[in-house]
Amino acid sequence: METIFFALPGNEILTKILSKKCNAEIGDVTIRHFPDGETFVKINNDVTDKKVILVCTLNHPDDKFLPLYFLSKTAKELGAKHICIVAPYLAYMRQDKSFNSGEAITSKYFASLLSSCMDSLITIDPHLHRRKNLSEIYSVPTQVLHTADLISNWIKNNIKNPVLMGPDSESEQWVSEVAKNANAPYIVLQKNRKGDNEVQVSVPQLGKFIQHTPILIDDIISTAGTMIETIKHLKTSKMKAPVCIGIHGIFAGNAYQDLINEGASKIITCNTIPHPTNEIDVIDLLAKSISILN
Amino acid sequence: METIFFALPGNEILTKILSKKCNAEIGDVTIRHFPDGETFVKINNDVTDKKVILVCTLNHPDDKFLPLYFLSKTAKELGAKHICIVAPYLAYMRQDKSFNSGEAITSKYFASLLSSCMDSLITIDPHLHRRKNLSEIYSVPTQVLHTADLISNWIKNNIKNPVLMGPDSESEQWVSEVAKNANAPYIVLQKNRKGDNEVQVSVPQLGKFIQHTPILIDDIISTAGTMIETIKHLKTSKMKAPVCIGIHGIFAGNAYQDLINEGASKIITCNTIPHPTNEIDVIDLLAKSISILN
Repeated sequence: METIFFALPGNEILTKILSKKCNAEIGDVTIRHFPDGETFVKINNDVTDKKVILVCTLNHPDDKFLPLYFLSKTAKELGAKHICIVAPYLAYMRQDKSFNSGEAITSKYFASLLSSCMDSLITIDPHLHRRKNLSEIYSVPTQVLHTADLISNWIKNNIKNPVLMGPDSESEQWVSEVAKNANAPYIVLQKNRKGDNEVQVSVPQLGKFIQHTPILIDDIISTAGTMIETIKHLKTSKMKAPVCIGIHGIFAGNAYQDLINEGASKIITCNTIPHPTNEIDVIDLLAKSISILN
Repeated sequence: METIFFALPGNEILTKILSKKCNAEIGDVTIRHFPDGETFVKINNDVTDKKVILVCTLNHPDDKFLPLYFLSKTAKELGAKHICIVAPYLAYMRQDKSFNSGEAITSKYFASLLSSCMDSLITIDPHLHRRKNLSEIYSVPTQVLHTADLISNWIKNNIKNPVLMGPDSESEQWVSEVAKNANAPYIVLQKNRKGDNEVQVSVPQLGKFIQHTPILIDDIISTAGTMIETIKHLKTSKMKAPVCIGIHGIFAGNAYQDLINEGASKIITCNTIPHPTNEIDVIDLLAKSISILN
């Protein structure tokens, strides 16, 4: 089956490189807004009987959903055989239960909407949280790709004598895997969240690692609240300036500058969301996964 | 069945008055954004077995859709018997066919999405265009309310010796109805659209109406391109400063100020989209329609 790639706005660079790696055509899509805020979508290629890859990372998802839905439905209507959404960052994974009565379980609703406009999904390290896998909420086949080895390699190649610090016990399995392949020790922080923006942190056994370079590692850097609190702790303990690594760099509000100001020596992310900190490249992972799509 | 109203952000005033007119409870919903741009929704009332009215006018629809969808699905999950969306302005009615190959027929896709999260829809004068009625695209029952009589009354009560001017032949049936009930003559403009923002206009038989007050009337005031072009024509023909009436005042970009600057003596809209020009009140229409819901 022939493959054709389309970039949703903001995903042009990734799509260009990906399509080249996959030896596939890159299609031309017009997505613009009418003066009244409605979205116009037009596919300028023949997609009949093709495998259509829609590349759309889903940070700040609310105004991305309708254009993506319209594009996908149009491709299908024009005869596409298979629609695969490549969302390096997958949104709405956090609210996976009703913590208080009346709360929308948005992860479930968003998954059901997205499932209704694709035949398969490829994503990278989604924030699974309390769920075991995406098939609990996504009704189409999903491929979940992992960056642990890429992060281990980056650490091995760039940091001497590192100690990894994971944000909470939930992350321990993942952090221990990254640490093992990087031949590095790790600590898991004790974290006490107080709302979306506030968090308290304590770091056990710090004294042992006074000669190490701390690597703060998390799957998502959003407000960076946990990392910032951790850096404060490290400073009072006379630790070296830490390196901060996130798979997905959302950097809500001023998060990036706040991390720099607090004393992060380096901030590193994967290129799942375009940002100047993208140093770990996921494109080969994605290309491989696309090439084995049915 | 007990009725409970919920306001989506921006619809609080309309919802408050409507719920009072319907002698119904007004519910409390929390809709806020996480720092990463995702939406949090929580219903703070018991909705079990109730008729739930979600008030959400749909101008600038793209970032309104997910919160509305989440709210509706949550109400249903919490046991609501019937979900009715009251959208005084209904979005995505214009792109109702593929003018060029590859274009998304967004009216169909949006209708299908909205139909998937409600049991009924109430709206006011949707821009039907090439469609005969909403049931061609909406799979749930819809009630379409009309403002023609309200507009006729406003004209009768406020303007002496008016002449109505409709934007195009498509609007003739509607404009003639408004004119008839306002005991006023009408003209239909000859319009030649050249893209989203550009339009050419000519006004036949102007000379006959030199003593009249021109009333430019349209269902939607978006860029106001047609009205602005018409005002220019009226000025060169030494006509009086016109009154501009729209059912739905979207006022894209600088449209409102542009109309004033061009010489509109007054701009009047219905309160389907909140705006200082709202002088024609649709609340009784809506209340009546809600009261006869099953």
